[in-house]
Amino acid sequence: MKEIIQNAWIIRTGGVIKKIPFNGYVVIEHGKITGIHEGVPSPAQIAESDEVTNASGKWLMPGLVNTHGHLGSSLLRGHGDDLKLDTWLKTVMWPNEQKFDSKLVRTAAELAISEMIRSGTTTYLDMYHLSMPELAEMALKRGFRAVLCRGMIAFGSSEEQEAKLQESIDLSKHYHNQGEGRIRVMLSPHAPYTCPPSFYERTAELASEHGLMIHTHASETASETAKHFEEYGMRPVEHLYQLGVLHQDVLLAHAVHLNEAELDFLKETNTAVSHNPMSNLKLGSGIADIPSMQQKGIRIAIGTDSTASNNSLDLFEEMRFAAMIHKGMYQDPTVTKAEEILRMGTSEGANILGYQKTGDIREGFDADLILIDPDQPHLTPWTPERIHSHLIYAVKGSDVTDVWIQGKRQMNKKELLMIDEEKILYESNELVKYFE
Amino acid sequence: MKEIIQNAWIIRTGGVIKKIPFNGYVVIEHGKITGIHEGVPSPAQIAESDEVTNASGKWLMPGLVNTHGHLGSSLLRGHGDDLKLDTWLKTVMWPNEQKFDSKLVRTAAELAISEMIRSGTTTYLDMYHLSMPELAEMALKRGFRAVLCRGMIAFGSSEEQEAKLQESIDLSKHYHNQGEGRIRVMLSPHAPYTCPPSFYERTAELASEHGLMIHTHASETASETAKHFEEYGMRPVEHLYQLGVLHQDVLLAHAVHLNEAELDFLKETNTAVSHNPMSNLKLGSGIADIPSMQQKGIRIAIGTDSTASNNSLDLFEEMRFAAMIHKGMYQDPTVTKAEEILRMGTSEGANILGYQKTGDIREGFDADLILIDPDQPHLTPWTPERIHSHLIYAVKGSDVTDVWIQGKRQMNKKELLMIDEEKILYESNELVKYFE
Ligand SMILES: [Zn+2]
Ligand SMILES: [Zn+2]
Repeated sequence: MKEIIQNAWIIRTGGVIKKIPFNGYVVIEHGKITGIHEGVPSPAQIAESDEVTNASGKWLMPGLVNTHGHLGSSLLRGHGDDLKLDTWLKTVMWPNEQKFDSKLVRTAAELAISEMIRSGTTTYLDMYHLSMPELAEMALKRGFRAVLCRGMIAFGSSEEQEAKLQESIDLSKHYHNQGEGRIRVMLSPHAPYTCPPSFYERTAELASEHGLMIHTHASETASETAKHFEEYGMRPVEHLYQLGVLHQDVLLAHAVHLNEAELDFLKETNTAVSHNPMSNLKLGSGIADIPSMQQKGIRIAIGTDSTASNNSLDLFEEMRFAAMIHKGMYQDPTVTKAEEILRMGTSEGANILGYQKTGDIREGFDADLILIDPDQPHLTPWTPERIHSHLIYAVKGSDVTDVWIQGKRQMNKKELLMIDEEKILYESNELVKYFE
Repeated sequence: MKEIIQNAWIIRTGGVIKKIPFNGYVVIEHGKITGIHEGVPSPAQIAESDEVTNASGKWLMPGLVNTHGHLGSSLLRGHGDDLKLDTWLKTVMWPNEQKFDSKLVRTAAELAISEMIRSGTTTYLDMYHLSMPELAEMALKRGFRAVLCRGMIAFGSSEEQEAKLQESIDLSKHYHNQGEGRIRVMLSPHAPYTCPPSFYERTAELASEHGLMIHTHASETASETAKHFEEYGMRPVEHLYQLGVLHQDVLLAHAVHLNEAELDFLKETNTAVSHNPMSNLKLGSGIADIPSMQQKGIRIAIGTDSTASNNSLDLFEEMRFAAMIHKGMYQDPTVTKAEEILRMGTSEGANILGYQKTGDIREGFDADLILIDPDQPHLTPWTPERIHSHLIYAVKGSDVTDVWIQGKRQMNKKELLMIDEEKILYESNELVKYFE
């Protein structure tokens, strides 16, 4: 199977040879990018291709990488906004989530994936506690690129704790690195305020034994951080460091409330951060100090969190928030530059999730690609030099027209190919009729 | 001319009788809303209408009101981002703006209006120094609702200053309140750092004499505020208060750097503020203290500023930033609630600009209306109770399908009716080839 995408403006986002996008074509063979060229393919190259896509006038870029989310919560979008965190948890999240069954979680996940593919995301991370094997099977079969984290709350007995860990290990045995590397599994303690220190130690042990990464929430709110200090005499990230959990195969979600020493621990251990600015703003959690992390050389990716707290999974918009809020906080327009944020949302995000060969347009990389239609007022005028800026400051998820994951087309001219979207929208609206 | 829009979910945003949107129909006669009803119109009502729009399943809401912008700068979108303000002004804005001619300004304005109508904005304010009469004529003829401000920089001689004021007065004589009130003209000193105190006094005198409002930038950056204090021993807004310029017919753009006393001056005089969060973030100006303004009862509207500093004119996204950043700053999710921000972006914005009968769906109001298509993953699930939340936290400008201004259709199923969009996009891309 050989495909050519021609007449596209080709945008690279990683450690790039040529920064200004150029017009040319990309060759895809068996899911991988095997050629990137300026100009047009020869008639012979066209003739020997199974499929040729004419991307004339469009922008071709790597698909976006969403490093933090909870797909199963998607049906809670807009259900109880503008509330204090504990009111929201007690009156909205918990009573409803208790009633979630596998059908609802499956529908919610497909809804979230529809939204993500439509808006150009080709890799997602999903931390959830229900139906993970079913969601893994779906991602495997339909060609999605997914990092699956069976979220573990460890308030229970040590038997219950072990059972959750065992579920995660089983999940990894069945699915980790399946789909030619598309599916990855991580061990996922929910957070330092829902898992005791011993559980983090045990998780780290198992992660090392099984060669798995760890993904956990950390220091999302000021009160969680203060309470942790009260209980343990250490702040959460400091505590994870002291426990020996921090590591280059660890990804922390949020990291909003860190002090200087904790930033240094992240750097020392090469621990990565998923910056989720919109969720942090909307829940009133605060604003992570991304410019300081960048200055220290901490690895940063971008995540949306769930639609219950965002309420959108459009990573273009998430990148825009990431690029803009820190400029305002620092009163300095030169921080969090467009190209830096674009890298976080693509190549750096992929790298942080453990995908060595996705997240950029490079030979030998998996063909996770998206096309953007710039022929619209809000992206006009444009020149090749302005494309990177537009991607961060002006593009909307709705500008994406076509999506490939591992060379397989997921969206063709705005039509989703691997999801019955009409059915999912209908069922989603039906299911919420019973919400509290 | 009588039109009915039926089967719509009708959303009111102002001082509302019924908060939850309901399904029904709206009757428009001669540009005004003459009926708002639940259920469906009778066959007789249908028969006596000239036009019936079936909005089945869609949301009908008042068009958005953009209270601050510079349409003529639109071709600078994405040209020199992530630069320090003075570098940007000296290397990007000024050298290019000096070469702007009336054709370029006209094209830039049409480009901006295309983007605004597409994303649901039915009222815009334009502060610019070139081609204002031509832009007024265009808005009048094509049915746009526009507040036109001939921006005045008053570094020159008193003759030059008077000439600029005279231009503004002439503009108002020809266009103020034309188009059955659609066109308004304000007097617009650029900013306290580009206009001497005497110029503000003279402007206030003329505004009062001619019954015009005043629109000016104020306290956008910390350095501008500090320099003003150094020169005059007073901060800019304090100074405007002492000069007697602040008044209920004055609209300040930005108001980022105000102290407590200045907030009180705004409240005392009933002066209004255009909050432009994305421009303030992107230029590194800072974050206006909107929750404090709300608490004091200061009138607040929402603006985009120009695409040179934003880089988008999508007021849905601007409202989203306005709703979210202050929650993060205050670490409190209960500030800047969805419904408050929605009001700023519609009824309150219209009111602040001096439009007494637009900005909401009410009998006797001008029919400035937009339709939104919720049948998309990022707006699913939805219930009538969740609509207000979705409008602020999830809707994109690209979800708008139809737009009416004063009862006249401006966009029909995503097609612009009063602008030759293809031509404007082409010409915009041609014109920037000569930019520095
Ligand atoms: Zn989360
Ligand atoms: Zn401005």
